[in-house]
Amino acid sequence: MNPHKYSDVITSTVEQLSEYESFKTLCHQHHDGEPMPSEKVLHEIIELCRSLIFPGYFGHSTINRRTISYYVGVGTERLFELLTEQILAGLCFACDRKKYTSLENMRESANEKSAEFIKSLPELRRLLATDVIAAYNGDPAAESYGEVIFCYPAIRAISNYRIAHCLIQLGVPLIPRMISEMAHSETGIDIHPAATIGEYFTIDHGTGVVIGATAIIGNNVKIYQGVTLGAKSFPLDENGNPIKGIPRHPIIGNNVIIYSNASILGRITIGEGATIGGNIWVTENVEPGARILQQKAEK
Amino acid sequence: MNPHKYSDVITSTVEQLSEYESFKTLCHQHHDGEPMPSEKVLHEIIELCRSLIFPGYFGHSTINRRTISYYVGVGTERLFELLTEQILAGLCFACDRKKYTSLENMRESANEKSAEFIKSLPELRRLLATDVIAAYNGDPAAESYGEVIFCYPAIRAISNYRIAHCLIQLGVPLIPRMISEMAHSETGIDIHPAATIGEYFTIDHGTGVVIGATAIIGNNVKIYQGVTLGAKSFPLDENGNPIKGIPRHPIIGNNVIIYSNASILGRITIGEGATIGGNIWVTENVEPGARILQQKAEK
Amino acid sequence: MNPHKYSDVITSTVEQLSEYESFKTLCHQHHDGEPMPSEKVLHEIIELCRSLIFPGYFGHSTINRRTISYYVGVGTERLFELLTEQILAGLCFACDRKKYTSLENMRESANEKSAEFIKSLPELRRLLATDVIAAYNGDPAAESYGEVIFCYPAIRAISNYRIAHCLIQLGVPLIPRMISEMAHSETGIDIHPAATIGEYFTIDHGTGVVIGATAIIGNNVKIYQGVTLGAKSFPLDENGNPIKGIPRHPIIGNNVIIYSNASILGRITIGEGATIGGNIWVTENVEPGARILQQKAEK
Amino acid sequence: MNPHKYSDVITSTVEQLSEYESFKTLCHQHHDGEPMPSEKVLHEIIELCRSLIFPGYFGHSTINRRTISYYVGVGTERLFELLTEQILAGLCFACDRKKYTSLENMRESANEKSAEFIKSLPELRRLLATDVIAAYNGDPAAESYGEVIFCYPAIRAISNYRIAHCLIQLGVPLIPRMISEMAHSETGIDIHPAATIGEYFTIDHGTGVVIGATAIIGNNVKIYQGVTLGAKSFPLDENGNPIKGIPRHPIIGNNVIIYSNASILGRITIGEGATIGGNIWVTENVEPGARILQQKAEK
Amino acid sequence: MNPHKYSDVITSTVEQLSEYESFKTLCHQHHDGEPMPSEKVLHEIIELCRSLIFPGYFGHSTINRRTISYYVGVGTERLFELLTEQILAGLCFACDRKKYTSLENMRESANEKSAEFIKSLPELRRLLATDVIAAYNGDPAAESYGEVIFCYPAIRAISNYRIAHCLIQLGVPLIPRMISEMAHSETGIDIHPAATIGEYFTIDHGTGVVIGATAIIGNNVKIYQGVTLGAKSFPLDENGNPIKGIPRHPIIGNNVIIYSNASILGRITIGEGATIGGNIWVTENVEPGARILQQKAEK
Amino acid sequence: MNPHKYSDVITSTVEQLSEYESFKTLCHQHHDGEPMPSEKVLHEIIELCRSLIFPGYFGHSTINRRTISYYVGVGTERLFELLTEQILAGLCFACDRKKYTSLENMRESANEKSAEFIKSLPELRRLLATDVIAAYNGDPAAESYGEVIFCYPAIRAISNYRIAHCLIQLGVPLIPRMISEMAHSETGIDIHPAATIGEYFTIDHGTGVVIGATAIIGNNVKIYQGVTLGAKSFPLDENGNPIKGIPRHPIIGNNVIIYSNASILGRITIGEGATIGGNIWVTENVEPGARILQQKAEK
Repeated sequence: MNPHKYSDVITSTVEQLSEYESFKTLCHQHHDGEPMPSEKVLHEIIELCRSLIFPGYFGHSTINRRTISYYVGVGTERLFELLTEQILAGLCFACDRKKYTSLENMRESANEKSAEFIKSLPELRRLLATDVIAAYNGDPAAESYGEVIFCYPAIRAISNYRIAHCLIQLGVPLIPRMISEMAHSETGIDIHPAATIGEYFTIDHGTGVVIGATAIIGNNVKIYQGVTLGAKSFPLDENGNPIKGIPRHPIIGNNVIIYSNASILGRITIGEGATIGGNIWVTENVEPGARILQQKAEK
Repeated sequence: MNPHKYSDVITSTVEQLSEYESFKTLCHQHHDGEPMPSEKVLHEIIELCRSLIFPGYFGHSTINRRTISYYVGVGTERLFELLTEQILAGLCFACDRKKYTSLENMRESANEKSAEFIKSLPELRRLLATDVIAAYNGDPAAESYGEVIFCYPAIRAISNYRIAHCLIQLGVPLIPRMISEMAHSETGIDIHPAATIGEYFTIDHGTGVVIGATAIIGNNVKIYQGVTLGAKSFPLDENGNPIKGIPRHPIIGNNVIIYSNASILGRITIGEGATIGGNIWVTENVEPGARILQQKAEK
Repeated sequence: MNPHKYSDVITSTVEQLSEYESFKTLCHQHHDGEPMPSEKVLHEIIELCRSLIFPGYFGHSTINRRTISYYVGVGTERLFELLTEQILAGLCFACDRKKYTSLENMRESANEKSAEFIKSLPELRRLLATDVIAAYNGDPAAESYGEVIFCYPAIRAISNYRIAHCLIQLGVPLIPRMISEMAHSETGIDIHPAATIGEYFTIDHGTGVVIGATAIIGNNVKIYQGVTLGAKSFPLDENGNPIKGIPRHPIIGNNVIIYSNASILGRITIGEGATIGGNIWVTENVEPGARILQQKAEK
Repeated sequence: MNPHKYSDVITSTVEQLSEYESFKTLCHQHHDGEPMPSEKVLHEIIELCRSLIFPGYFGHSTINRRTISYYVGVGTERLFELLTEQILAGLCFACDRKKYTSLENMRESANEKSAEFIKSLPELRRLLATDVIAAYNGDPAAESYGEVIFCYPAIRAISNYRIAHCLIQLGVPLIPRMISEMAHSETGIDIHPAATIGEYFTIDHGTGVVIGATAIIGNNVKIYQGVTLGAKSFPLDENGNPIKGIPRHPIIGNNVIIYSNASILGRITIGEGATIGGNIWVTENVEPGARILQQKAEK
Repeated sequence: MNPHKYSDVITSTVEQLSEYESFKTLCHQHHDGEPMPSEKVLHEIIELCRSLIFPGYFGHSTINRRTISYYVGVGTERLFELLTEQILAGLCFACDRKKYTSLENMRESANEKSAEFIKSLPELRRLLATDVIAAYNGDPAAESYGEVIFCYPAIRAISNYRIAHCLIQLGVPLIPRMISEMAHSETGIDIHPAATIGEYFTIDHGTGVVIGATAIIGNNVKIYQGVTLGAKSFPLDENGNPIKGIPRHPIIGNNVIIYSNASILGRITIGEGATIGGNIWVTENVEPGARILQQKAEK
Repeated sequence: MNPHKYSDVITSTVEQLSEYESFKTLCHQHHDGEPMPSEKVLHEIIELCRSLIFPGYFGHSTINRRTISYYVGVGTERLFELLTEQILAGLCFACDRKKYTSLENMRESANEKSAEFIKSLPELRRLLATDVIAAYNGDPAAESYGEVIFCYPAIRAISNYRIAHCLIQLGVPLIPRMISEMAHSETGIDIHPAATIGEYFTIDHGTGVVIGATAIIGNNVKIYQGVTLGAKSFPLDENGNPIKGIPRHPIIGNNVIIYSNASILGRITIGEGATIGGNIWVTENVEPGARILQQKAEK
């Protein structure tokens, strides 16, 4: 065996892959000294948020009333530091050079957005507490709030969504999407961070759920695995490309239940208290309190 | 840039998050000296079980007939030790202080349950061997038992289920649910550990499958991706909450096939040998041997 | 507590698990000195491919036109070395001892296949560039090519597919399947590496998508979450087992769109430009340009 | 090559090594459920002590006056927890079963000793501050207190000594010796934790320094590399073994300087303010203020 | 056992340790956004230098004439990046705020110094090659240059010295000292980075060697373990502290050999070609070509 | 700041460092497919040996009489596998291409030597047991065999020596030297693996001890820190280089004690039962039973 007989293959492939024409549209022109968005750091950020919001469940520590402020203090400082870098990484990635005149400019903006996020932590805790209660009440198999917090994928996905949504409202690019994709990968639940979701929201099982960017969901809504709140069609611009940013996903009223694998598509409204049966395809408004179901199967 | 101008935000948020009123219902009151449930340790436990059940596929070692008992010996001892701690962690988490008078009490119980689990390993191996055969026979793309064991997500999900089911039968709290959620996250297959499943069980592709806590599945059943064996509705108690523990999921007979994205809901019975077509919604009993399908699509 | 009172349980279980009769069909007879297939190494291989194809997005480095060849050079050499070992591991696992007379034989074959793969990298880059453009154009929520490359699960799944497909065409056993299962686990998208897929392919959201081994997909096709391109039934051989290798999955023409949770089953043809609505079950040919939808739901 | 032809060698060696007669005096009979002494954990303990004593130099954090108590709080709690386990490990290792009737007994004692150590941290900080000043003043090459704290091996060795000495005074077995051996390995400075050392102690360069268990060192003493404060001879007991615990190392007065490679041996006294030249061998008392030197070399 | 009975001890110790008066002189006032000196990063820097200077011995790669520039390219870029940060960390640590008006100022200076270091790599390779030859020629036990490069502690210590010396000449604070202390800890050889050392330098065994900051060593010098090239006394300033920066260590001529444990002290000159015997104490000039030995031992 | 202005420096340095003339004598021409000597793997090998020789002290496991063979079995197999690779790496490094006609040849030889080493483990245990007893008996500060095994640097250094010596007797190149240098770095004790050392050997404190390649040490010898058993001068060959392989280090009789920092040089004999005082320089034979000491110091 001559290990070097493959040198030619390697050398000539290296040359092709290094040609500017070949990689120019696929290459990220990262600037020295700017941080890179990092999935690993975002994982740590999410874990920190979870340990601050649900003390004693995540992280390594025993919590009591005297010492909780030590842990919350260290965790909050670390969160501020890591999040600032990732927000800055997002700003740099988005290359929003019109808005910012310098790296220092962007860094200051990242600091401000990060501090605003820190301020929102108590409200995030309040909201997620309602989701925990909803999951517990809605699932006959749930044995305690603790079990729900500790191992329900819905809580994990909704936590990431609420964190990412807060960041998107602060104008942070890219990072919110990465956070929601992390939950998507772990749970199979794909909630766009720009969606608007009320209190006491719960998802059972969850794999395959899709909630689009312009969806609006009221309070006390429950959905099952495989449910899509999607777009029906996209108006195209003069070049035949979808116009970006148009409201195109459904509005779901308070107290609605949507069963597994239902697809609700387009800017329609599902009225308050409606029940949508499983495996169906809904593209028109549904009255408040209505129950709609699939046609009977053939035998 | 003044890095300390955000100190006030941090300090005041730390104070809010450390207020007892704010975190009391969301906080886990872990006791010093008690082990915590750990997803990382449970991963090691599952890997150990897999290396004991399928020698030579998982773990780092070359196996031959003379040396296999060394590896099985070390693996079994380690499994006993790790599992005992995690069972104890589960007992402590569930805070079942009425049943146990002391930590030593709980530890002794954890030791016993762990030893019972160890005793079940040969039976787990026998059962999983039937599942491997079923997966191989049912999939024209499968090339060998080895490929099925090594990379089929169904085998991973069913392994976790059979391990978790064994633990739930031993009365272990929380840990079985964590084990099944780990498989859920990796494979998109969500099998509640309390479900009852016969031999030669197989799932093709699997993403989106949901099998509820009180489901009963016979021998030689095959299901496809997206199938739900779920509950239809929950009887409520006087407070309007679902009554926990009532049989509410289907009973599936021997030799049934259920195609992709079918939803079978409620305490109904799918008779032996029936075939359920894809994308349909079944809420009533199905006769043995019946074939039911979706209505034709509109063109 | 007497920690040794469980020794008997352990010792007797070890004996049962070490009996040859009990493990012989479930045991991998790995040969000393042969490499083992390793998911961890395959992860590194995929990351290397991604960093070579999309310079600057993955990996740790800042790229500029002068230095890119250093990174591409080191990455390509490392890829060649790691991939050769994993291809060899696949050949050994498949135990194709008829075809190869010795380990050295297999190693030489692994070297050749690995070099062929390296040669394909520029073409893989070209193909994946078309997929990135398709994903960007097809999603009103996408903000830049960069965002699509960096965090869209479809790009991750299609990258793994295109890499695995290249390896399967080179006759590499097992490894392609492992690579596609890795993407399946991360994204919920299950594309068999033997499937044939054209340019400008995109998948929206993706969880639950299944594309079978003999499926053929044209150019410019878009599919949504939960779509199955599956088999309808398997012709059995004289022993009642499915005959392996028969074409049994659909052929999808150019410019087809398939909406969420649709199941398209059997060796049927979906004609060029057709639109398949969501949540439906298609088992017969569809005309070019046709639009087919689910029956209206009952109210 | 037949990889199994070495099986016999392995199997028969395993048998020999597993014979009770062969290993009984060399085997540690560790009891299940008791912690093991761990060099890795002791490293973390030392790092924690250093980060608490010298805030901002070690550990990852930025310190300011408002937030220092968060870090000190978390660090102190973690130190208490880790140290308690290691003290317990030391008590178990020493098998002092006469003194303790149960594991719970030992655990309570470990808790108490650990809390006493925590109480000593401010005094340890005060003492080490004097050592830092002495090192800075005594070395013309030292540029700042910061440089001394951050990279002088003497400070590392004296820190470990002062920590270990505190533990030995609390009656902790084994652990103090492990801590001093860790410094010995890192710096070549071997200070027995039972030695008594005053304030403003410094060691220059340090490699090869040995300070015996019963040595007593005054304030403001400086020693150089290779200096031994050792024993001269050991009175033997009736079995010809050295009698343990007899004072056998020198007493060094205040303000003494001892130059490199000098050996001072036996229970002698070096009077206050004396200077001992390098490379000499001192086995008799030295007057206060005396200067003793090596004989001239031959040319 | 009441785990919280130690809360008071912890809480009150935390308060004491957090008092500004207690830590103010021992605390490093690190500024946010500035890098910290890191022993871990310096280890990576040293390993990178070694892999660039001695290709194929360190690092993971196989080197051949076609591909060496890939590895050298990636290694040099990474070295530049890491070294720049650590140089900046050193500048910040030394707090040389008079010289630099801003962090950007310091960063630019760090970039320049780092680039100067990169330029010196070929000369460092040339020098270290002479040391390798000297070690090989001087040790009858050495079997090849490869063995000397790969495992002689002298080469490790001299490599760190030559790297650190280059940095000290570029005016980098703190970092050179850290690099030499790393070698000191690993090898027991303590060479101050400010010392001046000629070509073909070798140290046999090496433990306990000390070479002071103002020592000057000619070409082709060999020293043995335990040799000190130290200061004899320090002129004091008006406050009784040693005056910093005065030449106080010996000058060693070309072709000198110094045997084990000899101490050579003060600003004396050891003439060209002299031989200094072991275990002696030299404080006066030695003629070129002289041989000096210890007095005979008493019997 | 222009981060690319340093590109020229980097690019031109890379070119210089990649020139064949510059690196040819310093470059290791490693062949593809051959293992590299690895300090990390050697650490694991040493830890495995220690855990097999002293069961229960090292490694993670609880040992009892029933289960010890599981651990010893797994450890011995792993040791065989790792050691074989490292022996092969040593053979390849030494490039002994005259002796071996192919890589397979060398691999077979490595397998044989590794198996021989495994066979020696019981004898290594017996020898090290005598060293443990000697260390315990000779040190009034030693509290138990356990403490000696667990934390005495002498036992660590002598263990590495006895392992390395066994390998050198089997004709393994390079690896023994690496093993002894690892102990040298950790303990400051430098024992050449070719030295011959009897039973009941002990070293107190140990930093700075040097024992040369041709030294011969009898039974029951005790030496202290800083002792050198070295060469006096090297006969030169016609090129002026030291002749390799000549006996040049001392022979130490049974029951000899050598105190700290003594240097014993040349092929002399220290007679049985002699005592050598500290800090002296011995270059002539010493009678059995003699006591020799340093001249008195000057006052």
